[in-house]
Amino acid sequence: MTGLPPATAATTSVGDVGERALIARILARLARPSWLVVPAGDDAAVMEAEPRVLEVLTTDALVDGVHFDRRFCPPEAIGHKALAVNLSDLAAMGASPRAALLSLVLPDALLLSDLDRMLDGLLPLAARHGASLIGGNITRAGADGRGPLILDVTAFGTVGRRCVLTRSGARAGDDVYVTGLIGSAGVGLAALQAGLEHAALATDTALDACRDRYLQPDPRVRAGVLLGRNRAATAAMDLSDGLADAARQVAAASRVGITLDADALPLDAAARAWHASRGTDAVTAAMSAGDDYELLFTARPSLQGRLRGVRRLLGDLPITKVGVVTRKQELRLRTPEGDRPFPSGYEHFN
Amino acid sequence: MTGLPPATAATTSVGDVGERALIARILARLARPSWLVVPAGDDAAVMEAEPRVLEVLTTDALVDGVHFDRRFCPPEAIGHKALAVNLSDLAAMGASPRAALLSLVLPDALLLSDLDRMLDGLLPLAARHGASLIGGNITRAGADGRGPLILDVTAFGTVGRRCVLTRSGARAGDDVYVTGLIGSAGVGLAALQAGLEHAALATDTALDACRDRYLQPDPRVRAGVLLGRNRAATAAMDLSDGLADAARQVAAASRVGITLDADALPLDAAARAWHASRGTDAVTAAMSAGDDYELLFTARPSLQGRLRGVRRLLGDLPITKVGVVTRKQELRLRTPEGDRPFPSGYEHFN
Repeated sequence: MTGLPPATAATTSVGDVGERALIARILARLARPSWLVVPAGDDAAVMEAEPRVLEVLTTDALVDGVHFDRRFCPPEAIGHKALAVNLSDLAAMGASPRAALLSLVLPDALLLSDLDRMLDGLLPLAARHGASLIGGNITRAGADGRGPLILDVTAFGTVGRRCVLTRSGARAGDDVYVTGLIGSAGVGLAALQAGLEHAALATDTALDACRDRYLQPDPRVRAGVLLGRNRAATAAMDLSDGLADAARQVAAASRVGITLDADALPLDAAARAWHASRGTDAVTAAMSAGDDYELLFTARPSLQGRLRGVRRLLGDLPITKVGVVTRKQELRLRTPEGDRPFPSGYEHFN
Repeated sequence: MTGLPPATAATTSVGDVGERALIARILARLARPSWLVVPAGDDAAVMEAEPRVLEVLTTDALVDGVHFDRRFCPPEAIGHKALAVNLSDLAAMGASPRAALLSLVLPDALLLSDLDRMLDGLLPLAARHGASLIGGNITRAGADGRGPLILDVTAFGTVGRRCVLTRSGARAGDDVYVTGLIGSAGVGLAALQAGLEHAALATDTALDACRDRYLQPDPRVRAGVLLGRNRAATAAMDLSDGLADAARQVAAASRVGITLDADALPLDAAARAWHASRGTDAVTAAMSAGDDYELLFTARPSLQGRLRGVRRLLGDLPITKVGVVTRKQELRLRTPEGDRPFPSGYEHFN
């Protein structure tokens, strides 16, 4: 801890501090669970294996300008989200989070206090879901230190052999469900972007929940674990790139079709109002917007008892039937005006 | 595989291709080991746990302009090195590599053929060391797609409970060893940099081995595993940031001192000649240069029989005694002209 800079002046940036001092600053904040044999700070972290489980590994990076905009994303939200998107991937496999690694690419001008605030967002989320931060890496953002800020998280979880959820298990006749409400994160992002130019939007409290859903998504870890543990779902995927994308990917991996019912989609009311006031289509927006870290899953109608058990344990979290799995490998959106093709999801580089 | 672009024209860049096509292009090249329950392509990769082992996790990123210079680092070398630096961390813990995740941050202008060539460098190294690429992520390098190319690898390995090596086990009276030769990578980098301006240096075959050591380091996986398995070492660390840095970190973690003998250091002959011809000090350079992915380790003199066994199994790889561990917490370099302080190692942001 001798490497900690003596003062955390709000004007100190990471470029003013040595790499080791930055690492020491982070290490000082980490817990040391009993199963962690060698904590962060050595060449690698070493942990005890869990007997008789499968191990789940995922990695997802947030890049400044691509996944967040620092003009309206506070550092706490960036740190929170960097972990949340990975926990959401574990949830989609039915896995319980266990450990995470944080790989940071830092521009020289990043304020040290903002780095602290990113950890203020990340660490409580980690603690809440039992994901211990056990290692990581820090490097400079390019030769000039002016590349984008990047938080690249790897998450590690465990799941029982018979409880793992994949995208490929959906069968014709299964029902399609989503957890929670959709459309809110997309509207939250739109409101934050519009708020840059129209101050009234930035303070419209009716949109608080939408903004919060975009900034600090709550990964459906418990839902994923319970669906897996109760063997209530045949396939699952998270909605990181939108409902349309998730349905498309589950259908493709399972070699089936999916028909969604537009009227059944659990649209957030504030999001619906936002679109109504603008004359835009809330369903299309909710299906194609990313950042709703809900789960899409499929379930066999004959096993509804298992799903009821999961619902009871989840309490308040809505679980809504939104469609069916079909033998014919087609994607259809059923609306009162007739069937429509799916809107597209989010894809980088396109 | 339907997402694969039909032609791989040397002028196609990643910005011309969708994210899914890029992912499909990589997935098509991955092997599927029997223990991989869900391969890359789902929300996360799922693998079978190994019974009765410790699990080792590490992450290390290579950033364009910081860790490599594309003017003289061919894509194969970049891909090779991105994995090698992580395998080197596993080796330093005595762990056998098992799996790796590759998180890519790609500028739009990166040629698709260069992405292929990075994998041409990474995948054979992975296969040679039993590290299966089981997942990853792709994202764009900033909002304008013009940020630096980054390869961020997470490596996962296993080690027996009594075989794990750490930095903190050195005790006064232990001997200090290094594997292989040192100083070569630093000279290789210097020659590559100088070769940008002086073509003769770029083709001086006496420096081929040094350049190769810098570009395609051979992580000491077998040495690390054998040292751990034979319980021949009390502490270990890799030389990624130089010998001086490694000795300093092992000494600090073990709360001991280290005295190195300048005359005993196994300097690469070509590196020594390079420095002699320039009137620079080869020992200082070799101690402070990073990128020698050798191991520093300490061993108890009373357990030399174990080390002899490891030497026999390693065959050609030199293992050289370079110093001793002292009770007094000091770092000293013994030279014919008297004791000197350590030169400093490489540190980002300073």
